[in-house]
Amino acid sequence: MKKRQQLNDLIDMAAGRKDADLLITNCKVIDVYNQLIVDGPLAIGHGKIVGYGADYTAKEIIDANGGYVLPGLIDGHVHIESSSLTPPQFARCILPFGTTTVIADPHEIGNVCGLDGIRYMLEASRKTPLNVQIMLPSCVPATPYEQAGCTLEAEDLVKLINEPGVKGLGEVMDYPSVINHDEKMMNKLWMAKDHDRVIDGHSPGVTGKNLTAYVMGGIMTDHECSTQQEMLERIRLGQYVLLREGSTCKDLLNLLSAITPANARRCVLCTDDREPADILATGHINKSLRLAVENGLDPLMAISLATLNAAECFRLKDKGAIAPNYDADLLIVDNLKDFTAKHVFVAGKEIARDGKLLVEWPDYISDTVLNTVRLPKLIAQSFTLPLSTEKVNVIGVKPGSVVTTHLQIEVNKDSEGNFDARLNPGLNKLAVIERHHATGNIGLGILANYGLKDGAIAVSVAHDSHNLVVVGDNDADMLAAVKDVEAMGGGFSLCQNGRVLANLALPVAGLMSDKPAQDVADALHNMIKVAKESFGINPDAHPLMTLVFMTLPVIPELKLTSTGLFDVKAYQPIELCIK
Amino acid sequence: MKKRQQLNDLIDMAAGRKDADLLITNCKVIDVYNQLIVDGPLAIGHGKIVGYGADYTAKEIIDANGGYVLPGLIDGHVHIESSSLTPPQFARCILPFGTTTVIADPHEIGNVCGLDGIRYMLEASRKTPLNVQIMLPSCVPATPYEQAGCTLEAEDLVKLINEPGVKGLGEVMDYPSVINHDEKMMNKLWMAKDHDRVIDGHSPGVTGKNLTAYVMGGIMTDHECSTQQEMLERIRLGQYVLLREGSTCKDLLNLLSAITPANARRCVLCTDDREPADILATGHINKSLRLAVENGLDPLMAISLATLNAAECFRLKDKGAIAPNYDADLLIVDNLKDFTAKHVFVAGKEIARDGKLLVEWPDYISDTVLNTVRLPKLIAQSFTLPLSTEKVNVIGVKPGSVVTTHLQIEVNKDSEGNFDARLNPGLNKLAVIERHHATGNIGLGILANYGLKDGAIAVSVAHDSHNLVVVGDNDADMLAAVKDVEAMGGGFSLCQNGRVLANLALPVAGLMSDKPAQDVADALHNMIKVAKESFGINPDAHPLMTLVFMTLPVIPELKLTSTGLFDVKAYQPIELCIK
Repeated sequence: MKKRQQLNDLIDMAAGRKDADLLITNCKVIDVYNQLIVDGPLAIGHGKIVGYGADYTAKEIIDANGGYVLPGLIDGHVHIESSSLTPPQFARCILPFGTTTVIADPHEIGNVCGLDGIRYMLEASRKTPLNVQIMLPSCVPATPYEQAGCTLEAEDLVKLINEPGVKGLGEVMDYPSVINHDEKMMNKLWMAKDHDRVIDGHSPGVTGKNLTAYVMGGIMTDHECSTQQEMLERIRLGQYVLLREGSTCKDLLNLLSAITPANARRCVLCTDDREPADILATGHINKSLRLAVENGLDPLMAISLATLNAAECFRLKDKGAIAPNYDADLLIVDNLKDFTAKHVFVAGKEIARDGKLLVEWPDYISDTVLNTVRLPKLIAQSFTLPLSTEKVNVIGVKPGSVVTTHLQIEVNKDSEGNFDARLNPGLNKLAVIERHHATGNIGLGILANYGLKDGAIAVSVAHDSHNLVVVGDNDADMLAAVKDVEAMGGGFSLCQNGRVLANLALPVAGLMSDKPAQDVADALHNMIKVAKESFGINPDAHPLMTLVFMTLPVIPELKLTSTGLFDVKAYQPIELCIK
Repeated sequence: MKKRQQLNDLIDMAAGRKDADLLITNCKVIDVYNQLIVDGPLAIGHGKIVGYGADYTAKEIIDANGGYVLPGLIDGHVHIESSSLTPPQFARCILPFGTTTVIADPHEIGNVCGLDGIRYMLEASRKTPLNVQIMLPSCVPATPYEQAGCTLEAEDLVKLINEPGVKGLGEVMDYPSVINHDEKMMNKLWMAKDHDRVIDGHSPGVTGKNLTAYVMGGIMTDHECSTQQEMLERIRLGQYVLLREGSTCKDLLNLLSAITPANARRCVLCTDDREPADILATGHINKSLRLAVENGLDPLMAISLATLNAAECFRLKDKGAIAPNYDADLLIVDNLKDFTAKHVFVAGKEIARDGKLLVEWPDYISDTVLNTVRLPKLIAQSFTLPLSTEKVNVIGVKPGSVVTTHLQIEVNKDSEGNFDARLNPGLNKLAVIERHHATGNIGLGILANYGLKDGAIAVSVAHDSHNLVVVGDNDADMLAAVKDVEAMGGGFSLCQNGRVLANLALPVAGLMSDKPAQDVADALHNMIKVAKESFGINPDAHPLMTLVFMTLPVIPELKLTSTGLFDVKAYQPIELCIK
């Protein structure tokens, strides 16, 4: 139907001259503008809100059983790849919880597949009822010391800025480049400014004049606040603050009591990174609402964070409220405490009820994001680590953290003068293999306090360049694990005596499975169990997350990339052997 | 300076690597985002806010003497023409009070001069430091029963939509056309929607399903709420509500206590129509702030209405807050009670201090808006009013109101069978002369309860078509007054015995003087004095405003246009003589 005829029709419905398509009766509607609760019914037509609280009639009726109707929830910042799920599977996972819109930064797949990866996320998202708004990743690669699959400059990003579903520029993690107005970074910011787009920020710990300079660059949001002082300073400077409740980073409760009736409009909710098991067990943005209300936030104010405020922040003009001509993206809950979604609607169509999807949509994988694990020919000897000294720089695992410690240790060499983990109890060998262009680059290092015995673990997810990380106590199992990951086209693999004990294929960019969330959650759970039981890994360390963050050269203290050890404090490469 | 170099410079200033241009010291800065007061100093560079509350340095320093620095005030809806001042003179009048941005609907000049009139307002505004954002008038002519100077359809308005300074579509007064989706109205709405623009509303008294249908059309604001119920309903439907404090329509205090911390973000301040004497005596938007705070609104919340909220409503991305890279439009006040502007800055330059302008700008009048009073050849007999019956429909003046009463009276005819006011004490003759195209159309009628004796008054300001209205007790003085207005190219004229007792030239479209506000205020004051003293006009009636609203066929009950009497309740023309 032509848009003009549709609007005329909606005006007729609103005026009561024509039946609406759907009427939700026996409901209480959340008015996010006044933060009031208004009696229904609520009329819907052409997938849009018609009106509520008047004697509307419609062809179809749904009885809400006295429930509260909320605007569909909005996640202000998420990396879908971190769920290990493709967009269609991710949509299946979160829609039943009432999240109907996400602002997604495909930073991870961007590092692997560049523009093709972003195009895939756009195309795959369009096949789902989930409204995915893409922020173009601003920092690919994240640092000049990484060998990512691609480099994305302003002249690359501009090719996608006018694509439907592209909203702005993703989190600008490289804050020194903004504060020092480096030309390449400024080109990206101007690309977004010239198209009048939103620019997301990321500035943990930055404060005072440096923060002011960063905001001056045009950075409009921050989701990295961990203290109330950081939050109030960012709001004062005009940024929106996205209060994060992720699987690892949980800032919402720390920040909650800094929300006031005055500044609430500048506050939004987000997840950033959530694991599928965690989502399935506790919910999504509705979990954040539940936590916020449990901890004292007014329920109607909390709802405004997850709806109207996010819509204003990201300029989603048809989202975030229940008002005439807004998209009929809705959820119905029984109470304003646990926010369990009883019904979820997208564009006026009920798509989930009582946590179960009512509609299906196809999976989608493009050839452009498959077969991304491209390795040189490897043999066990590829991992040989000759030592010119006994004293070496060693990466120490810090349990429960992605930060590492920088150790200096004397190690035992084998008869050939090489490092052998079996001669050094408590130590493992670590390798990072460039996996995008089969360059043959392999960074080798030594890991302490991880405690892997009799085997190896390899992963193709490793922030932010997503090279292949393998750790083990013998080269044969390291090779077996790498080969298994290679054969799967990416994923996680645990090998012992040349045999695969457990694995999970992540064929999409080496980052995402095309299996449902529950399958992925089960596989991850099983691998962790096997790693602890069969490999004796340090029970306080996360066997997989430890590896996934082992390569990120912006997290202290010592990291390993495909070009070797990196001293994060000195912000430069460092030799393994201490002369 | 190129915009990129300027931004790099500003980043350097913000980071403290480079001196700012100006530092305002000894000040308290209003943080509208948190609604908090933060200690200065405040640094400004390249006309932009650099930062505040840190140890900035600058080439120039202004000591604010402990004052509060506010973002420049924004008037959310004004008809500049109603001040009788050209844009340059209007800017001179209001800038010293701290209003630095106005959202202006040039509806009046649009009715006289069409697109040329709007172009004039744009050009004239650009010559001043006042930021004038134009909403293209949506209802020219206001009704099909008026003979305006021009007709503006969507295909006309679109020619100006992308002009710098054009923000959206002006108040859609013709709400029945929206509710019934009349094609010509929908064309205008789609013109604005297709360009992603703001659409202003005007829907006094409309409620329920009709209001919902009106909002469905895309109408985003309303400045006509007179009750709290109207206000809350409009906010609930997603509109911004502009709380009006005009010279005649004063809604602010009626609505004030319906503002809550939750809905305040959807509230904005506006003046709509203010007379120059009133502005000079009491202030502008700072008067609204003073009233609001006097009557209990939190001062910081009040400021947010006049700044951040207006900027969000009208998408003024660089206005409405004191934050990095925002325009340095500022005012400094000694306290948050009377809001007397001590210093006013536009784009970082101090333009007024202690109520006096520090800078000058040229007047500007274009030939395209001069000589707009185009009359046929008139003689005294042009006003001859033959009566076929004694009983006639008469317009009754309702003192202190623009509403009239519809009277049916038996009148005395002269020997020729015509109406003569001198034979009918208490009655006057009224004429509306089409003045745009010299068509010769003259509507004639009889006015009761105005009480003009021994003379005539003529005006070229008459809503909304601005034809020439003249009232008198004899045809000779009516002709003299009309001739005087014609000779001035528009204005007000009071004539007695063929002599001009007082007048005010309004040569710009017959609506605006090019004289300073004080001169215009004095002239208006003098005319009212003369009208009451020399003409004995009803002391409870406004001699001029009564005439200015005499032609508007949407205000009850009986009105006169250039084509004759109009019965507003029946919404159709009506004969003078009752058969």
